Amino acid sequence: MKRGFGSDNHSGISTEVLKAIEEANMNHAMAYGEDEYSEHVKQIFKQHFGQQAEVYFVFNGTGANTLCIDSMTRSHEAVICSDTAHINVDECGSIQRIVGCRLLVVPTPDGKLTPELIRTQMHGFGFQHHSQPKVISITQPTELGTLYTIDEIKAIVELAHAHNMYVHMDGARLANAAVALNCSFYNLTTQLGIDTLSFGGTKNGLMMGESVVILNPDLLPNFLYRRKQAMQLCSKMRFLAVQFQAYFNNDLWKTNASHANKMAQLLYQAIRDIPQVKIMYPVQANAVFVQLPRHIWTQLQKAYFFYDWDENKNIVRWMCSFDTAEEDIRHFVNTLAQIIQQ
Amino acid sequence: MKRGFGSDNHSGISTEVLKAIEEANMNHAMAYGEDEYSEHVKQIFKQHFGQQAEVYFVFNGTGANTLCIDSMTRSHEAVICSDTAHINVDECGSIQRIVGCRLLVVPTPDGKLTPELIRTQMHGFGFQHHSQPKVISITQPTELGTLYTIDEIKAIVELAHAHNMYVHMDGARLANAAVALNCSFYNLTTQLGIDTLSFGGTKNGLMMGESVVILNPDLLPNFLYRRKQAMQLCSKMRFLAVQFQAYFNNDLWKTNASHANKMAQLLYQAIRDIPQVKIMYPVQANAVFVQLPRHIWTQLQKAYFFYDWDENKNIVRWMCSFDTAEEDIRHFVNTLAQIIQQ
Amino acid sequence: MKRGFGSDNHSGISTEVLKAIEEANMNHAMAYGEDEYSEHVKQIFKQHFGQQAEVYFVFNGTGANTLCIDSMTRSHEAVICSDTAHINVDECGSIQRIVGCRLLVVPTPDGKLTPELIRTQMHGFGFQHHSQPKVISITQPTELGTLYTIDEIKAIVELAHAHNMYVHMDGARLANAAVALNCSFYNLTTQLGIDTLSFGGTKNGLMMGESVVILNPDLLPNFLYRRKQAMQLCSKMRFLAVQFQAYFNNDLWKTNASHANKMAQLLYQAIRDIPQVKIMYPVQANAVFVQLPRHIWTQLQKAYFFYDWDENKNIVRWMCSFDTAEEDIRHFVNTLAQIIQQ
Amino acid sequence: MKRGFGSDNHSGISTEVLKAIEEANMNHAMAYGEDEYSEHVKQIFKQHFGQQAEVYFVFNGTGANTLCIDSMTRSHEAVICSDTAHINVDECGSIQRIVGCRLLVVPTPDGKLTPELIRTQMHGFGFQHHSQPKVISITQPTELGTLYTIDEIKAIVELAHAHNMYVHMDGARLANAAVALNCSFYNLTTQLGIDTLSFGGTKNGLMMGESVVILNPDLLPNFLYRRKQAMQLCSKMRFLAVQFQAYFNNDLWKTNASHANKMAQLLYQAIRDIPQVKIMYPVQANAVFVQLPRHIWTQLQKAYFFYDWDENKNIVRWMCSFDTAEEDIRHFVNTLAQIIQQ
Repeated sequence: MKRGFGSDNHSGISTEVLKAIEEANMNHAMAYGEDEYSEHVKQIFKQHFGQQAEVYFVFNGTGANTLCIDSMTRSHEAVICSDTAHINVDECGSIQRIVGCRLLVVPTPDGKLTPELIRTQMHGFGFQHHSQPKVISITQPTELGTLYTIDEIKAIVELAHAHNMYVHMDGARLANAAVALNCSFYNLTTQLGIDTLSFGGTKNGLMMGESVVILNPDLLPNFLYRRKQAMQLCSKMRFLAVQFQAYFNNDLWKTNASHANKMAQLLYQAIRDIPQVKIMYPVQANAVFVQLPRHIWTQLQKAYFFYDWDENKNIVRWMCSFDTAEEDIRHFVNTLAQIIQQ
Repeated sequence: MKRGFGSDNHSGISTEVLKAIEEANMNHAMAYGEDEYSEHVKQIFKQHFGQQAEVYFVFNGTGANTLCIDSMTRSHEAVICSDTAHINVDECGSIQRIVGCRLLVVPTPDGKLTPELIRTQMHGFGFQHHSQPKVISITQPTELGTLYTIDEIKAIVELAHAHNMYVHMDGARLANAAVALNCSFYNLTTQLGIDTLSFGGTKNGLMMGESVVILNPDLLPNFLYRRKQAMQLCSKMRFLAVQFQAYFNNDLWKTNASHANKMAQLLYQAIRDIPQVKIMYPVQANAVFVQLPRHIWTQLQKAYFFYDWDENKNIVRWMCSFDTAEEDIRHFVNTLAQIIQQ
Repeated sequence: MKRGFGSDNHSGISTEVLKAIEEANMNHAMAYGEDEYSEHVKQIFKQHFGQQAEVYFVFNGTGANTLCIDSMTRSHEAVICSDTAHINVDECGSIQRIVGCRLLVVPTPDGKLTPELIRTQMHGFGFQHHSQPKVISITQPTELGTLYTIDEIKAIVELAHAHNMYVHMDGARLANAAVALNCSFYNLTTQLGIDTLSFGGTKNGLMMGESVVILNPDLLPNFLYRRKQAMQLCSKMRFLAVQFQAYFNNDLWKTNASHANKMAQLLYQAIRDIPQVKIMYPVQANAVFVQLPRHIWTQLQKAYFFYDWDENKNIVRWMCSFDTAEEDIRHFVNTLAQIIQQ
Repeated sequence: MKRGFGSDNHSGISTEVLKAIEEANMNHAMAYGEDEYSEHVKQIFKQHFGQQAEVYFVFNGTGANTLCIDSMTRSHEAVICSDTAHINVDECGSIQRIVGCRLLVVPTPDGKLTPELIRTQMHGFGFQHHSQPKVISITQPTELGTLYTIDEIKAIVELAHAHNMYVHMDGARLANAAVALNCSFYNLTTQLGIDTLSFGGTKNGLMMGESVVILNPDLLPNFLYRRKQAMQLCSKMRFLAVQFQAYFNNDLWKTNASHANKMAQLLYQAIRDIPQVKIMYPVQANAVFVQLPRHIWTQLQKAYFFYDWDENKNIVRWMCSFDTAEEDIRHFVNTLAQIIQQ
């Protein structure tokens, strides 16, 4: 399939990541994370997220999100999240099945929770009939390609901690946020008091492999068992671990994410002045959401796969990736232009 | 870590498998299994397991086992299995948490269920207080390295189907069984009426990636959703699929499994006459279980990692792998001999 | 505690119901529903709900609702319901924990779903990332004391069945709806194609005891086991069954519900012209929701317990019951008037 | 149905209990346990179980057992219990579904666990693949009608606490144990360090209503929510509470249980010398288990309902109850004698 804008999951593996897998493919290694590769990469995570950070590799983003929530919540408690949150709409009910708790879903204009929006769900504390609010889950960047500022996150964390609640960050694309905000992973997470983080790599050049980073040490006990029981313990763990090693080495994460973000800006600039195209949200990471007439996007889908985000509103999503080339954008925009001119 | 006999999970990736990953790492591909690689490999599975076989790739063996059981059982039903079954002892309660059903555990002398043993658990049908027996789960080869004959499996399937029950086969090492019994995968599964199969590859040369093979079409509906909800849906699926492509290509599975079995035979022959060593079970696949004095095996563990299988009984497990070399065995047996002579 | 308007759960037991318990308290009876009393009452339910109706007694409304949903749904599916639905807000997440499925919650102006509102959640069919819509759950009368008309229910059932979905009716107060609409239970449920019904009695004169009425025979298999496993199987079942016997005998249900509804009308008429009091919803069953200044309702709560329904909006709920007396209303309204005049 | 020996659940309600329900049936009372009756009975429990005892009323024994286990365990942990334990064989997998944890089942000769038997399951601590042993559950008296001595329980509690584990007591018939051992409830539970207790009354004269008594204060937080979510919160709670009030008043529990135990002794003495009848276990509470030729017990079942306990071994169970009369035994034994003589 030619490169397109369907998803950053459609891209392949960064050369450096594949090379790291090859290099780790020698001799034997202990299974289930007790190998030297895994130990080494755990230390690298501490460099990036602070000494208290404990990383656990898992298979995919749904696993990372669900296990983060699982570490902070029991079934009689509840998670406040945006209506667009991946845990709400794109995981076929994993939280409900695996954790068994309730999601308190808040409509948001741009995928971002605010203290004001969160407060609409913060009630019923101590009332036995009501799922007890325990976690606020935010996605950075959001599923709509928008960004929380440092201060916005800080305000949410303060609100949560003031109510004895935890904050989960879904960082499936955290690298894209970090380069956009020009800050470190530490600045974006640990320093702000985030309790657990789903830290992704698959969408930014890894083959597969996501991770749970537990930043609040109170949440550590039992995590090993919870991961295993939830079917997210990899046997040949070294091959997950070394992907992250390559990801951090020479700032590959930064190179890849910067490129994807830059491509999204190029795409944005190439289309923002087209009258038929309405940009829906600020383009702050690697996603571009546009509204355009149905006959145009359906025609465009014949040449390129991409998701209609809201079919009724004619909103579609175009994602850039670490391997998007400038010529990909040129060709895509040309195709679009031709359809419009027909 | 030097090559040893701790687990076939300690081995790395077959060269051909890694090469297949590299070759698939070009352009974009649809995510979540809708790519051409996955489609192609699904057809290959049909060649090996029959036209009704539908394969679903998952991340690991616990995922495969749990999703097989999940496809056949609801929480008020029960699964009859051996006390040594991986689903019983080595998965930290995944079945209980994810499926929510009861395991009816039967002690076995050699890891193998028999109709007679199974019948001890087949009661309470229609009694609302009793979890309803619905699945018989067998492991081939067993966790003790023993094999069911074709006829033994046939008898179990007949018993199950006569009671409106299903049969699950945990085939984490099915290749080792197939080469040992000199039969095809079809002979071992579909032809015998097996309903669902956990078909593994990780222990025999894949990087990671197991699969659920559904052989009874009644069990297909909903499987896609169940897999996703259970956090076992891979985004960049092509990289799981092509591992299996390489596995079947040129009978790599057979080459690898034959070698591992042959190494186990070599190991067996090298130790069977040592008076201090008692072979616990017939060596029929790639595992050797021995009983030997505690001071010997604890001393040996200083040079080689391996699991004590039953510490109280001084039984330990030695596994051979696709990458075990004859010299590995020689060195291991020499080390053992030296310890004994001390 | 003196009689008030806090909840119809605050009332006691109808004399006839208590007498039925006493009369059944002789000799022995089979446990777990295999007694003659239970058999007899099952037949009575068939008279009221049609021959296909199968009733299962359970302990409480949460049990009835959860088991109804459980009979129609698996965890990867979803239930469309109103934001005010009891299953959404008042059961501490039972559906999520016990069934494991997702609730697709729709804001409603008056507690009532409409086909238009429901359609906002009917998408993602066949998309593996999305919980599959499978059930529409409506409450009759709603938690806000409003009523669906026969035609409104018919339209919802048609929509559901056209999409291979089921309809659940939470009838915790179904008697109040039946008398208000002047129709039989059959008219309100079976005749309209309702698939499962939570049929309550506790709020209308029973001591305790609710029931699941399965109207769609496809949903019967396994129900016995599901109820037991969900801890809702009563041992001395005769004492649940005979409560319903008394409930149907001489139309006790009708007498009680008519009275409660009539009392709500009296209360409504007594307050509707008070300028400080705003009636929030049509008073169609036994509930009256009003908005009134905070200092008034907080003062009133010193004399009478009742729930603030929405503290921020100063909305409170007043419930009438089968045992509400006219003088209770007089005294309550007098107290309110005195507070207002202060 | 005439009085027989099928189950102590076949009996009705003690007169005093029914009278207490009637007396509580006046005025209104707060729902969900916030009423004065419930408050009062909570204090009575403290008199019987010590000041730290906190009682929560639930609907049935399965609910009590499951919620006790739920308060002490998470899904990755395990409960050690006897193979005859009610939670293992008679609850259709409630623990697995509701708690999601593994049961580590130990065969026992007489329904009683011992430290030696328990230790066979106490391994795998800290091993992520293994469900972590966390609770030991014992039944007093056992499902086989046998009794643990005070010292036997003490030894089990010590073993548990030494391993950071909890002890649950299933006391569905605790009154029968207390009178048999001539000790108080406090002596049997709190004084020995029991952590949670399922305290039953239904089998000994209550209409329905069991209770969870939490003796270890560490286990209190969240219990209210867990009970509600598990569908075990009664709305008109006063009618559960006052049953227990009557149960403790004038030692009704003792009167009832003493009588049932005495009847079991009478039955035992009347049959122990019949050559065709073999008494299986010491008759220490209100159960008599006998082995007798199949043609005899099947013939006897035509006159009296009772359970075959192990059909293959021709073992059946005869239970005495608080309402068993001496003439019931005479008639039952006469019928048996006639069958034998045929």
